[in-house]
Amino acid sequence: MARWEPGARERLIRSALELFQERGFAETTVPEIAARAGVTNRTFFRYFGDKREVLFGNEDQAAAKLRAALAKAPAGLGAADFLLWGLELYAREYLDGHRDEFRVLRRIVESDQSLMERSLSKRRAQCTILGDALRERGMRPARAQLLAEAAIGALSIAIGDWVQRDDETGIDTLTIEALTALRADLGGIAAARSPAARR
Amino acid sequence: MARWEPGARERLIRSALELFQERGFAETTVPEIAARAGVTNRTFFRYFGDKREVLFGNEDQAAAKLRAALAKAPAGLGAADFLLWGLELYAREYLDGHRDEFRVLRRIVESDQSLMERSLSKRRAQCTILGDALRERGMRPARAQLLAEAAIGALSIAIGDWVQRDDETGIDTLTIEALTALRADLGGIAAARSPAARR
Repeated sequence: MARWEPGARERLIRSALELFQERGFAETTVPEIAARAGVTNRTFFRYFGDKREVLFGNEDQAAAKLRAALAKAPAGLGAADFLLWGLELYAREYLDGHRDEFRVLRRIVESDQSLMERSLSKRRAQCTILGDALRERGMRPARAQLLAEAAIGALSIAIGDWVQRDDETGIDTLTIEALTALRADLGGIAAARSPAARR
Repeated sequence: MARWEPGARERLIRSALELFQERGFAETTVPEIAARAGVTNRTFFRYFGDKREVLFGNEDQAAAKLRAALAKAPAGLGAADFLLWGLELYAREYLDGHRDEFRVLRRIVESDQSLMERSLSKRRAQCTILGDALRERGMRPARAQLLAEAAIGALSIAIGDWVQRDDETGIDTLTIEALTALRADLGGIAAARSPAARR
């Protein structure tokens, strides 16, 4: 697509982020974003389905990277190791070096209900990628889904933690920390039937 | 609200489910639902914010029950036990005895993208209830959130399993099974940094 309008996609994303910060997401229109980026409305809609999508466009590219990373994982990794292999490559290619941008992005998304919904829907797509990859390696669908959701949940928490920090702790380390805490919290389950169930 | 139109709410839900099954969700209008239930459009909108909401209205009541159940949990339960206590009461009051209804509901929700999004949003509300309850008991927010998401994820898988079964296995048992499998799958994490990270 780049040959239509060199750099247009990146300019549109940058212009949208600026306007959303200056005026708020709801108060900004597509024509305003297009005007600031120096392109037509039609060009905007070549790249993005709607105003919300301009905030998530890079995620679709990232999802493809995630899928590709998982496909390259070595055989013989356990299920959790396998997912973490993919998430680490994903974090390295998609997030590293963009901390300031993600700080802004998170703040905008959290400011608007419709953006939160779109964000949940994108997150679900990521879960599907991980879950499919686990299923292809022979895991039962329901089990694959829950592990995939936990991994994406941990990644989301790790990113939230990461954007608030200024140190060099990596997203991969924070993701593993979150999952390790979850494992510990699930430790008591065998005894976890509530007294009411035993009556 | 019941004094406005005795039974109207339940009739609206039943009429909506019938029409969605007969014609599909997208093809059914609010006036049609209201007409079949024998009430006016205005009555419909007294009970439900939009057409999607009629499928989820009971969930809001259920969410209140979930919150109440957690508030009644005995002190001294571990984090996972505490959540399972709440989920078990929730399942007993909200799901037990309604298996056929939930079969239909799931099928309709899965047939429509906008319903899936609303469903994710309701699920997020449930996660917030569990996460808040854990935080009130002193757990760190990020950790509480991930455990809450895992518990709701397990509940969702348990319900999906339950609607496909015809035996007497309870949702609580299926939820615990799912979380136990998750814990096992997270077992390998300490070694889970991918080789790429160690280079």
